[in-house]
Amino acid sequence: MSVKVGIMGATGYIGVELVRILSGHENVEIVALGTQNYGGQFIFEVYPHLAGYNGLVCEEYSPDGFPESVEVLFVALPHGYSMPYAVECKRRGIKMIDLGADFRLTDYLEYQQWYEVRHTAPELLPEAVYGLPEIKREQIKGAGLIANPGCYPTSIILAMAPLLKNDLIDPNSIVADSKSGASGAGRGLALGVHFSEVNENFKAYNVGIHRHTPEIEQELGQLAGGKLTVSFSPHLLPITRGILSTVYGKLNKDISIGDLINLYQEFYHNEFFVRILPEGVLPQTKWTTGSNHCDIGLVVDPRTGRVVVLSAIDNLVKGAAGQAVQNMNIICGLPENSALTCPGLFP
Amino acid sequence: MSVKVGIMGATGYIGVELVRILSGHENVEIVALGTQNYGGQFIFEVYPHLAGYNGLVCEEYSPDGFPESVEVLFVALPHGYSMPYAVECKRRGIKMIDLGADFRLTDYLEYQQWYEVRHTAPELLPEAVYGLPEIKREQIKGAGLIANPGCYPTSIILAMAPLLKNDLIDPNSIVADSKSGASGAGRGLALGVHFSEVNENFKAYNVGIHRHTPEIEQELGQLAGGKLTVSFSPHLLPITRGILSTVYGKLNKDISIGDLINLYQEFYHNEFFVRILPEGVLPQTKWTTGSNHCDIGLVVDPRTGRVVVLSAIDNLVKGAAGQAVQNMNIICGLPENSALTCPGLFP
Amino acid sequence: MSVKVGIMGATGYIGVELVRILSGHENVEIVALGTQNYGGQFIFEVYPHLAGYNGLVCEEYSPDGFPESVEVLFVALPHGYSMPYAVECKRRGIKMIDLGADFRLTDYLEYQQWYEVRHTAPELLPEAVYGLPEIKREQIKGAGLIANPGCYPTSIILAMAPLLKNDLIDPNSIVADSKSGASGAGRGLALGVHFSEVNENFKAYNVGIHRHTPEIEQELGQLAGGKLTVSFSPHLLPITRGILSTVYGKLNKDISIGDLINLYQEFYHNEFFVRILPEGVLPQTKWTTGSNHCDIGLVVDPRTGRVVVLSAIDNLVKGAAGQAVQNMNIICGLPENSALTCPGLFP
Amino acid sequence: MSVKVGIMGATGYIGVELVRILSGHENVEIVALGTQNYGGQFIFEVYPHLAGYNGLVCEEYSPDGFPESVEVLFVALPHGYSMPYAVECKRRGIKMIDLGADFRLTDYLEYQQWYEVRHTAPELLPEAVYGLPEIKREQIKGAGLIANPGCYPTSIILAMAPLLKNDLIDPNSIVADSKSGASGAGRGLALGVHFSEVNENFKAYNVGIHRHTPEIEQELGQLAGGKLTVSFSPHLLPITRGILSTVYGKLNKDISIGDLINLYQEFYHNEFFVRILPEGVLPQTKWTTGSNHCDIGLVVDPRTGRVVVLSAIDNLVKGAAGQAVQNMNIICGLPENSALTCPGLFP
Repeated sequence: MSVKVGIMGATGYIGVELVRILSGHENVEIVALGTQNYGGQFIFEVYPHLAGYNGLVCEEYSPDGFPESVEVLFVALPHGYSMPYAVECKRRGIKMIDLGADFRLTDYLEYQQWYEVRHTAPELLPEAVYGLPEIKREQIKGAGLIANPGCYPTSIILAMAPLLKNDLIDPNSIVADSKSGASGAGRGLALGVHFSEVNENFKAYNVGIHRHTPEIEQELGQLAGGKLTVSFSPHLLPITRGILSTVYGKLNKDISIGDLINLYQEFYHNEFFVRILPEGVLPQTKWTTGSNHCDIGLVVDPRTGRVVVLSAIDNLVKGAAGQAVQNMNIICGLPENSALTCPGLFP
Repeated sequence: MSVKVGIMGATGYIGVELVRILSGHENVEIVALGTQNYGGQFIFEVYPHLAGYNGLVCEEYSPDGFPESVEVLFVALPHGYSMPYAVECKRRGIKMIDLGADFRLTDYLEYQQWYEVRHTAPELLPEAVYGLPEIKREQIKGAGLIANPGCYPTSIILAMAPLLKNDLIDPNSIVADSKSGASGAGRGLALGVHFSEVNENFKAYNVGIHRHTPEIEQELGQLAGGKLTVSFSPHLLPITRGILSTVYGKLNKDISIGDLINLYQEFYHNEFFVRILPEGVLPQTKWTTGSNHCDIGLVVDPRTGRVVVLSAIDNLVKGAAGQAVQNMNIICGLPENSALTCPGLFP
Repeated sequence: MSVKVGIMGATGYIGVELVRILSGHENVEIVALGTQNYGGQFIFEVYPHLAGYNGLVCEEYSPDGFPESVEVLFVALPHGYSMPYAVECKRRGIKMIDLGADFRLTDYLEYQQWYEVRHTAPELLPEAVYGLPEIKREQIKGAGLIANPGCYPTSIILAMAPLLKNDLIDPNSIVADSKSGASGAGRGLALGVHFSEVNENFKAYNVGIHRHTPEIEQELGQLAGGKLTVSFSPHLLPITRGILSTVYGKLNKDISIGDLINLYQEFYHNEFFVRILPEGVLPQTKWTTGSNHCDIGLVVDPRTGRVVVLSAIDNLVKGAAGQAVQNMNIICGLPENSALTCPGLFP
Repeated sequence: MSVKVGIMGATGYIGVELVRILSGHENVEIVALGTQNYGGQFIFEVYPHLAGYNGLVCEEYSPDGFPESVEVLFVALPHGYSMPYAVECKRRGIKMIDLGADFRLTDYLEYQQWYEVRHTAPELLPEAVYGLPEIKREQIKGAGLIANPGCYPTSIILAMAPLLKNDLIDPNSIVADSKSGASGAGRGLALGVHFSEVNENFKAYNVGIHRHTPEIEQELGQLAGGKLTVSFSPHLLPITRGILSTVYGKLNKDISIGDLINLYQEFYHNEFFVRILPEGVLPQTKWTTGSNHCDIGLVVDPRTGRVVVLSAIDNLVKGAAGQAVQNMNIICGLPENSALTCPGLFP
């Protein structure tokens, strides 16, 4: 069996990562590569690391112009661009996995406020499922439209879900201090990702106002069973891949580190992609590089009454393309880790 | 006028930074370079970047064996090694600036608990002054023994002093998420600072248990006028120099970002080394590389009721050697920024 | 069918890369992990990126003490340590792939001179085959002892083979200027691979005296049909993985860049792992990161009469573990690219 | 005494480095900062690391519109933009130091061929002096127009001058394999200097066709006393600052390493900025970072009959702004190392 997929935005960093992963997927055939800037070029001309792995030419498809043979459409475009594709997929009756932000927030007004773009398909929001499999696998199975989570939210939600589900922390005490590699900013040129400005440097950006904030609060709120706010501070690491989130919460009750680790291990029991580290071991981004894993380390600090949860992912894999393939595997009834069974590339 | 100085631990990263800075100080003559491992070698053999700037041979001095001509002694040794030097300096009646941790904590029992070493000179603690000039300039002026602050504490205390002094935040709400370059770990070999393990990687370490924690709490407590605890999480950046601390506090009262910036500018009025950034600008470590500056950016987040203070320093300069020279300038009656008037090396 | 393999030196960077690659090999079962320093520990305790992929405990095996079930033995130990393993494998009648240098030089006196170690098994040298499949596939097929090439030699020999085989350059005109990431130096601690000494820095080392020199000259000499000398200068890049070799030769006759590229494409026709880049495209190490590919770019400079060949590999994969698996596939009659069909991890 | 200087192109990386260095020059007053993109902004808004060091507003000056008070004009603009400034400086009778390429080649036809731009002031070429002080100090002293050398040529010419002057190598045997940090490409946005494309990556570019080639050949030819060609291959290092050139030549006669080092030391006797390293020590770019030094290491390889010269500079300092200040010091009769007496920033 072979699923025919199309990838819109195939020449961005997330798109090309989809091509890389899906090239090794034995049940997938890529039939269309959409691009905004590289129409008419072979993907291996744009990205020579793919030479020998994919022989397709990139095309500048319109939202209703991609091939009819596509059975699952991945859309890896900037926010604001996915909505017409979702409408078209609905019309064709095919499944779509959106790696952008257009269908992540259930409230389109909140979307419009944070993203400063009009939502043109709010009628599709009720059927969109937030595609974080470890939390919402059952809903994903039957979904036609998957809103693949943002990279930062993935790292923070997986870190905090067990605590909030078990009511162990004050939901309004959460401080999420996240650090990301530069590939998260994509391939678009900007002074903020110019080599000499990022290299051997470190800074925070968009503190308290990053667009992933409402997504984090929405999903953590669902886990906590009520609205909450989060202090979210993204930082730019001088590395290409990797997110480490250091998330703080005020404990509601005393719990030992041993019990907490047990609780996390049970919560993520049978989850191939989530690895709970033993006591005293804290995650390193490089352990996950190139893989779909999320590694989680835990610290209980009795002096301050806080718990500190540290989670590491590869922002382009579990934070984007890998998770999208995981979602595709689920909705297509394939083994969930197909094409995703590689460990991180260390060192 | 020329002050004759000795540097013990001159072949470590902090020591050699002292040599670099003092080589450009027109009122200083370096007369002794102490070392633990490179006895008999010219400093420029150990560190060729100093060729042409210093012609001294490093010696393995005992604590009472350094030259009598020394008027100010810098001690840049691991914790536990400074105490006998302090006793000797006291005996000789000369001034000492300790860049280690032995005289930073006023309570020697707390020192022994956190550092797991016996304090052999507790009688000198009452006369030691914590050498953070922007906070304690007057006490430093007359001090004979300076406890030069740790790198992380410098970045965090300068960030939070105006808030605590003005009672603007809940003192027990502080979360200090700090990120440091690897030079802070020194030149000693260890897997944790092996190139292939640090490069293109990111991790936290010693979360909640780092030895700078009591120092931070002691000094912030003095500013707040009472004991407090802090959640302190250090992280290792894949860069050589630079610390960025992202410090969170729960506001006691509403304050606008404009008023907060004004308050910081007033607090650090006339402080050459502290630069308060305008609204919307957040510090970058590279703006301070090689300089003695501490750059501070501010964010007020009305959604969460928190303030986020971001401070950047070069850990080897304002976080160690530069601040030590600043202290020396003060205790010797020299212009405070002598040999320290260079901007960061950017890009 | 499943080949039972053992890996001696499994906790070094090359060894753990063998574990990573072989974990994804459907015809291989790893039955023994040898170590010099981590006896009694699970491999995933030493290298947490492997958690979930291999559950073996590392053992401090003696050369004759590894399990009898082993059918192919990989030895990834420092030079001088492989010889007793080779003797034992011969005794047991099993195949061995040596990733060290002990069996690369056909002349044991030359080995002893360059490596300053006595060769204790010179009688095995005649049956050892230099394991560069693109050049010696036929000999490899029947070999019992494979001398897996060094990382630098792999990049240089693949770059120059077509030129020498076709007598296009003066064999004594070769200058090989190579640059390697730090993982090539292994996990052993040394100031030369201390993070703060390598990061944001660049240097050459062992110019003209590196131990890979005789190996390069031996193999290039075989291709040229006569002895030759090479100027070989290795450099240390502030990256973890990757080698780029820039190799210069004086052309014997005029040749256009188009003809030269055709000649290379023909020479490496049907070679999955060697990719000849089109005119005007030069290789980048990152295109090969994590993959077993060698990318080659070509420049003809009529002004100087020289050809410049640029080749890029991942030093831990095509330069070590990947090539060893390629050799294993060949000697076991498996598809040559089994477990090696992934493109580079870019960006 | 205070020289009034203007800097055109002050907001590029070379220009801002001029501002940084000249801010510490006690005999210089900066009176004008020209910019192409940041007119009306304070320099410290564009480059916050300069806050506290320079309070000028950047202006979009026309070539004849910069202030009349300027006594020495630095022009740090892309090639093709300096010619009208040179004409204007000539008209005003003031001195100009051009950090671009417009006046480096004595033959304007060669300039037009390599740079593909028309030379509009060929009449000024005869009075322009190539500003490499260690080679041409006497001519520089009286010059009105200085052509500040390119970064690569500086590193290569200083490396090879003693060999060519003493006729020790075959002049047509030179292979110059150079590696530069990304700041050499400036602040202009391009995919080639996008962080995720450069970081943890390495490549060559413009092999055999880089525009610095004719400049290198012109100056080396003058030293050799006749025309010559050079194989010049630039590479892009994943660092910000630093050039290392590895230059190969075929020896004309036997010479020991000791004699060669002596010859270099004598050649550069009294040169503060050139440091000849002892036998067995090879230069590292970081030893020169932020300084105006050029460090040179030497290897004689009797096996191949070649000499290998390795030279390291900071491309923005000795390779651009620092050398320009050195030239200014010379033409203004100031101590040649004014504002340039700092060692590299290591680690």
